Amino acid sequence: MSERVREILSWYGSANPGTLTNLSRLLNHGRLAGTGKLVILPVDQGWEHGPARSFAVNPAGYDPRYHFELALEAGCNAYAAPLGFLEAGAREYAGRLPLILKMNNRDSLRNEKDPHQARTGSVQDALRLGCAAIGFTIYPGSSERLEMYEQIRAAAEEAKRHGLAVVIWSYPRGSDLDGKAETAIDVCGYAAQIAAQLGAHIIKVKLPTSHIAQDAARKVYEKEKIPIETIADRVKHVVQCAFAGRRIVIFSGGAASSDDQLLEEIRGIHNGGGFGSIIGRNSFQRKKDDAVKLLQRVMDIYAGRGA
Amino acid sequence: MSERVREILSWYGSANPGTLTNLSRLLNHGRLAGTGKLVILPVDQGWEHGPARSFAVNPAGYDPRYHFELALEAGCNAYAAPLGFLEAGAREYAGRLPLILKMNNRDSLRNEKDPHQARTGSVQDALRLGCAAIGFTIYPGSSERLEMYEQIRAAAEEAKRHGLAVVIWSYPRGSDLDGKAETAIDVCGYAAQIAAQLGAHIIKVKLPTSHIAQDAARKVYEKEKIPIETIADRVKHVVQCAFAGRRIVIFSGGAASSDDQLLEEIRGIHNGGGFGSIIGRNSFQRKKDDAVKLLQRVMDIYAGRGA
Amino acid sequence: MSERVREILSWYGSANPGTLTNLSRLLNHGRLAGTGKLVILPVDQGWEHGPARSFAVNPAGYDPRYHFELALEAGCNAYAAPLGFLEAGAREYAGRLPLILKMNNRDSLRNEKDPHQARTGSVQDALRLGCAAIGFTIYPGSSERLEMYEQIRAAAEEAKRHGLAVVIWSYPRGSDLDGKAETAIDVCGYAAQIAAQLGAHIIKVKLPTSHIAQDAARKVYEKEKIPIETIADRVKHVVQCAFAGRRIVIFSGGAASSDDQLLEEIRGIHNGGGFGSIIGRNSFQRKKDDAVKLLQRVMDIYAGRGA
Amino acid sequence: MSERVREILSWYGSANPGTLTNLSRLLNHGRLAGTGKLVILPVDQGWEHGPARSFAVNPAGYDPRYHFELALEAGCNAYAAPLGFLEAGAREYAGRLPLILKMNNRDSLRNEKDPHQARTGSVQDALRLGCAAIGFTIYPGSSERLEMYEQIRAAAEEAKRHGLAVVIWSYPRGSDLDGKAETAIDVCGYAAQIAAQLGAHIIKVKLPTSHIAQDAARKVYEKEKIPIETIADRVKHVVQCAFAGRRIVIFSGGAASSDDQLLEEIRGIHNGGGFGSIIGRNSFQRKKDDAVKLLQRVMDIYAGRGA
Amino acid sequence: MSERVREILSWYGSANPGTLTNLSRLLNHGRLAGTGKLVILPVDQGWEHGPARSFAVNPAGYDPRYHFELALEAGCNAYAAPLGFLEAGAREYAGRLPLILKMNNRDSLRNEKDPHQARTGSVQDALRLGCAAIGFTIYPGSSERLEMYEQIRAAAEEAKRHGLAVVIWSYPRGSDLDGKAETAIDVCGYAAQIAAQLGAHIIKVKLPTSHIAQDAARKVYEKEKIPIETIADRVKHVVQCAFAGRRIVIFSGGAASSDDQLLEEIRGIHNGGGFGSIIGRNSFQRKKDDAVKLLQRVMDIYAGRGA
Repeated sequence: MSERVREILSWYGSANPGTLTNLSRLLNHGRLAGTGKLVILPVDQGWEHGPARSFAVNPAGYDPRYHFELALEAGCNAYAAPLGFLEAGAREYAGRLPLILKMNNRDSLRNEKDPHQARTGSVQDALRLGCAAIGFTIYPGSSERLEMYEQIRAAAEEAKRHGLAVVIWSYPRGSDLDGKAETAIDVCGYAAQIAAQLGAHIIKVKLPTSHIAQDAARKVYEKEKIPIETIADRVKHVVQCAFAGRRIVIFSGGAASSDDQLLEEIRGIHNGGGFGSIIGRNSFQRKKDDAVKLLQRVMDIYAGRGA
Repeated sequence: MSERVREILSWYGSANPGTLTNLSRLLNHGRLAGTGKLVILPVDQGWEHGPARSFAVNPAGYDPRYHFELALEAGCNAYAAPLGFLEAGAREYAGRLPLILKMNNRDSLRNEKDPHQARTGSVQDALRLGCAAIGFTIYPGSSERLEMYEQIRAAAEEAKRHGLAVVIWSYPRGSDLDGKAETAIDVCGYAAQIAAQLGAHIIKVKLPTSHIAQDAARKVYEKEKIPIETIADRVKHVVQCAFAGRRIVIFSGGAASSDDQLLEEIRGIHNGGGFGSIIGRNSFQRKKDDAVKLLQRVMDIYAGRGA
Repeated sequence: MSERVREILSWYGSANPGTLTNLSRLLNHGRLAGTGKLVILPVDQGWEHGPARSFAVNPAGYDPRYHFELALEAGCNAYAAPLGFLEAGAREYAGRLPLILKMNNRDSLRNEKDPHQARTGSVQDALRLGCAAIGFTIYPGSSERLEMYEQIRAAAEEAKRHGLAVVIWSYPRGSDLDGKAETAIDVCGYAAQIAAQLGAHIIKVKLPTSHIAQDAARKVYEKEKIPIETIADRVKHVVQCAFAGRRIVIFSGGAASSDDQLLEEIRGIHNGGGFGSIIGRNSFQRKKDDAVKLLQRVMDIYAGRGA
Repeated sequence: MSERVREILSWYGSANPGTLTNLSRLLNHGRLAGTGKLVILPVDQGWEHGPARSFAVNPAGYDPRYHFELALEAGCNAYAAPLGFLEAGAREYAGRLPLILKMNNRDSLRNEKDPHQARTGSVQDALRLGCAAIGFTIYPGSSERLEMYEQIRAAAEEAKRHGLAVVIWSYPRGSDLDGKAETAIDVCGYAAQIAAQLGAHIIKVKLPTSHIAQDAARKVYEKEKIPIETIADRVKHVVQCAFAGRRIVIFSGGAASSDDQLLEEIRGIHNGGGFGSIIGRNSFQRKKDDAVKLLQRVMDIYAGRGA
Repeated sequence: MSERVREILSWYGSANPGTLTNLSRLLNHGRLAGTGKLVILPVDQGWEHGPARSFAVNPAGYDPRYHFELALEAGCNAYAAPLGFLEAGAREYAGRLPLILKMNNRDSLRNEKDPHQARTGSVQDALRLGCAAIGFTIYPGSSERLEMYEQIRAAAEEAKRHGLAVVIWSYPRGSDLDGKAETAIDVCGYAAQIAAQLGAHIIKVKLPTSHIAQDAARKVYEKEKIPIETIADRVKHVVQCAFAGRRIVIFSGGAASSDDQLLEEIRGIHNGGGFGSIIGRNSFQRKKDDAVKLLQRVMDIYAGRGA
C-alpha cells in the first residue's frame, strides 16, 4: 500500500477496519490505484433524467452491463449506480471492480422546488451485492434537507457498523437558492462541510464558480481575501472546507461544453488538491472507445502525467 | 472529589451512577476541575453558519484536530461538536478530554422563520466515540418545538439508560419571537425552565438582556420587582428558573464586541451564580495563543481568581 | 379499605389488579384517604406559563422539592408534574406520596389557536420514578385533537399493561371554540365523555359555566330541561357525562378571585357529587402555611366536615 | 417516613426511585410499618409440598383468598405467593397489602438431589398484578445453581428497570450438602452473601445452626473466633455477611416444634439485628385467630414490645 | 497523556474511541496513572470463597464501601467486583475511580472438577453503574470452557459496541489439569494466548511456575531453550504469548506467604515486563493502613521507584 493511501486512511480514526478495508478497495483499484486519487463512474441518470435523455445518444448504455464494462476498461476506481443497475450486473462482474450502491434517488417526472429523494436501496442490498460503499444524495437548502440528513445519518450508522464506506453527494438546491447559487463557491464549500459533519468518508460536490450567494458569507470572503478566482483556488477552498483536506472530496464535471474545457477543469481540480472526479454523462454518453480515452486522459492528469 | 462537585451530583437523584460518573468527568476535567464551574468549547458553527464564516478568520480551525488541541491547551471542561468533527479526532484524542456529541444540527442555507434541526448523531455514536454526554438544541417558540421536545425526550431516555449525561441548548426562536425577544430575560428564564423540565442535566441558554418580551410576564416581573438590571441579576434569575439552582446552567457568550466586554459579562455570570460558559466563536476565531489566554482569563474569573 | 374506595374500584372491571392497586394508592393517601375524594397538587405551570409567572409570587416554588413538601404537608392524594420536576425529587421523596407523571406538555412562547402538546415523558419514566399514574392532556376542539387522542391511546395501553393508572386532563380548546365555549357546560360534559371513552381512569375537566356553546346541544339541554343553573347542577351533569358517575371526575379550580369564592366552588363540586379538585396556582402561589390551610379547608369540605 | 426506613433506603444507591418506592411500600405496611422490620407471609407450600400436606390441617387455606385475609388481619408487611394464588385474589385485595410474586417454583413429585426451579411468573405478571417485588429462589450448592443465578440476574435486571424490588430466597441445597449443611452457619452466611452479590434488595435465608459444614470455613471461624453460639450471634453474623448489614435479611422459621420455641427464635433474630421473618407453615397451618395471635406476638418482638 | 499510554492505546487498532477512552481511564487513574502499569483491587472472594473466609480476618471488608475506600486510598487504577458490591457503592463513589463489573461468578458450595461460572451481571449493568470495563473469567481446561468462550465472546461484542473495555481472567482449571498444571508456564502462556485471541483488552493470569504440564509443549520449551527459570523469565514469556506484548497482561499475586515474598514476585513481574497486578486477598485481608502501605510499595516497584 502506498504511503499516500496509508496517509489518507489515517484520517479516518473512528472508522472500523472493515470500513478502512473498503476505502482502500476504492483507493487501490484501477489506473489511479495507490495515488490517492479517484475517478468514479456514476450512472443514475436513467433515473434522474429518464432513459432516453440518458442513453439514446449511445444506446449501448441502456444495457446495465455496459457501464460495468466501461468502468473496467477505463480503469475507474469504482462504479456507482442505483439498485436495479447493480443487481443487473453484480454477479457477472463480481470481484472485478468496487461498487457503490446509490441508496437514494429521484426522478424528474415531477420537479419540486424543494426536492427530496427516495431511499431505493439498503445497507443489506449493498452487502449482498458486494459493494464497497453506499452513496447518498442530500440537498442542503431544500426544505426537505433536515429529513434527508436524518436519513443518511441512520443509513451511515448502519453502513459503518457493517464495515462499508459512506459517500455523500452534497448538492445544494431548494426554493431559496437560484441556479447560480447552487454552484456558488460559498454554497459548495458549505455543502462539503455539511457532508463531512454528517460523517461521510467521501464527499462529492459540484465544481464551484466564483459567485458568492450568501450575503453573510460574502463579507467574510472579501474581508479574509479568500482566493476564489481560478478553479484551483476554489477547489483548494472546498477541500479546506472538508476538514482541512482530511476528507476525500471529489467533483462532478459540471457544465463543460467540450472535452478541452472538461480537461481544463480537471487540471484545476488536480492543481487545487482535489481528490478526483465523478464523471457520468461525459463518459457514458459517447462511444465506449471515446469514453475510455477521455477518462484515461482525465486519470493521467490526476496521476500527474497529464499537465 | 470536591465538596462542591459532590453537592452538585446530589441534585441528580434520579440519574443512575453511570450518568453521575459522566457528569463528574465533565466537572473534574481541566482548569476548573472540582470548582463546580464549566467552560465548554463548542464547535458546531461550521454546520450552523458555514465553514468560511466560521474558520476563515483563523484557518487552523478548518482542521478538526485543532479544536481538540484548543480545548486541551486552554483546559476546558469539555469539547462539544457534531458527529463528523468528533469522528475526525476521537481516536487520536481518546481519553484526553470529555466529549459531548452535538446530536442535532441545522445549516443556514435555508432560514426558516420557525426553525428545526436534524438529528445527525445517535446515542450509539456517543458511546462508540467515548462521549460523556449528548447535546441537543431545542427552539422554544418555533412551530417545530413540540417535535423537538419529543426528539430530545426519546434521545435523553436512551442516553440516561446508557449512563450518559444530557445537555440541552435551549434557544428561543420562531415566528412569534423577534430578535429582541430571543434574549429577553423572561424568555431566557422560560427556556431554562423548559430544558430543566425536559430532564436536562446541563442547560445552556443565551445571556439575557433586561428586555421583557411577553406581556403576561412583564406584569409579574414588575409586580414582584424581580431584579433584572445587571447581568448578575439576570443570571441569578435564570439560574433560579432552572429549579432554584439545582440544575447546571451555563451561558453562551452573546454579542460581546470586545474582550473586555466579554470578561465583564463573565464576571456578571460568575457573580450571579451561573455555572459557566460555552464559548465558541470567541475562542476558535482567533489565534490559538490568544484564545488560550482569553479562555484562561475566563476560567480565572470562574475560579474566583479573576475579579 | 373503605367501602367507598372498594365501590369505586369496582367500576374499573377491565383494569388489571396492578392498575387497581395504583388507583387505590391515589385514593388511600393523605387527608382524604378512604373517602373516595381526591385533591391533587399539579405543578406544570412552570412549563405552561413560564417560571416567573408561576413561581415569582412565592419563590420557594422554584425549587422542585418545595412541591413534594407542600403536597405532603397539606395531605394531598398525589402530586402531578412533568419529568424534570419529578426527577428532581423522586429519590428524596420515594415512597412518601403518590406521583403522577404529566407525560405531555406545552409552553406558551408560542400560542397556536389549535394547540397541541409534546410527549415529554414515557411510561418507562413513570415506572422508574415510582409513579402511580400517567397524566395526559387532550384538547378536544383543536385541529390536533385526533393525533392527541391517538397518542394518549397508545400511552394508556402501555401504562395499563404495566399496572399504572391513567389520568386525562380534558381541556376543550381550538380555533372553533371561543374562550366562553371552553368552559361551557355542554363542552365540558363532552370533554368528560371523550376522556372516559378514551379509557381514562381519572378525568380532569374545568369547572363549567352555564353557557351552552353548541347549537345542537342547546336544543337538547333546553328540551330535556337539564338543570345547569348552579355549580352543583353542572358538576352533577358532568359527572353523569362520565359514565353516570362510574369514572372519577375531578375539577380544576378555575379563576376564583378569592378564597371564599374558591371554597364556594368546592362546595358546589362536593354537592354535585364531584370527586375532588386539582389545585395548582391557588396552592403553590402563596406561602406554604397559607396553602396548607387552604388545601385543608378544601379537603374538609370534601370530607364532609366543611359545609 | 421514619428515620429508620429512610436510613435503610439510603443503602440502595443504585436502585431507581421506583424500586425505592416499592421497598418503602414493603417497609411501611402493616403492624411493623416504619420500624425497618418485616414479617412476610409466604404461601408456596401448595406447590412445594402438595396441597394436602399444606392445607388439610387447616382447610381454609385451600382457598387463595384466605391467605390475603390472614396477612391483612395479622398486619404482615407483605404476602408472597406463586402466580396462581396471586391471580386468584389480586383484584379483590388490590391496594390492600403489598404483594410479592414468587417467580420460580418446584414441586416434590420428583426430588432431585440437585434441585432446580421453574420460572412460573414474569416481571410483566408482577406489574399487571400490582406487586411490589418479585421473589426468586436459588439453591447454592446445587449443580443447577449457575443456571439459577443467570435466571434471577435476568429477571432482576428487568424488575429493577421497571421499578420493582427483588427478593431472593437463598436456600443451600445439593448433592454435596447434607441436611445438616443446609443450615450450617457458614453455609447460611455464604448463601446471604451470594444473594447480596446477585443484587437482591431483600434476602431470605434459613435460621442457621452452629454447625460448620465446610472445612475451609471452619478454620476461619475458629481462628477468628467468630461467635456462633447463640441464635443472636449467628443472626448477627449472617447479617454481617450481607454487606455488613446494608441489605435487608429476613429469616424463615426453621424447625421450631412449639410456639415458645418459635418466639425464642424470633427474639434471637431480633437481638441479632435480623430484619424480620418469613413465616409460612407456622401461620397458615393453624386456625386464623391463632395464626393472627402468633404473628402479632412475633411482630411485637420485632417492634421491641415483646422481649 | 503520557507517551507510554499513547503507545499502549495504539495496539488496540480495532477498538473504537469509546473503548480507548475507557482503557485510558484505567491507565490514567491512581498512583500509577500514566506509567502504563496497573494495580487493580478485585473483590469477588466473598462470592468465590464465602464471606467469612474472605472478610472475617478484617471485618471492615464485609462493608461494600470499604473496598471503594481502600482502592481510592491506595491509589489503585481500578476496583473490580460483582454486581452486588458495585451496586452498593456506585452512587456514593460515582466518578471517583474506574470500576470493572465482574460479570460472571461462581461459589464454592459445590466444587466441580470442571468448573463453570454464572453470568451475574450484564453490559447494561456496567453502563448504568458507570463502569469502564467488564471482567469475565474463563477456565481453559474445563469441559465447560467452550461455552464460557462463547459467553465472553457475546458479552465482549456488546461491551465493545458500547465503548467498554474487556478484561478476561484466564485461569486454567479442569479435570485434566492437576493443581500443579494450573500454574505451569506452558499452561499460563497458553491461557494468555486464548484470552488475547478472544479479543480481551486486558488479560489476567496467574503468576506461573517453571513447571511444564503438557508433554507436547515441553519438547518445544526444551528444544527452543525458552528461558523460564526466574519469575522475570516466565513473565516475559507470558507477555510474549499475549501478542508479543501488545496486550496488557497483569498477574494475580499467587500464594505468597509473606510480604517480602510478594514484593519479590512483583519485582519479577516488573522486570519481566508485566503490566501489573491484581491483588485481592493480600490487600483487603489486613488492616486498611497496612493494605495501603503494601499496595503502595507494590506500586512503587511498578513505577520504577521500588527496586
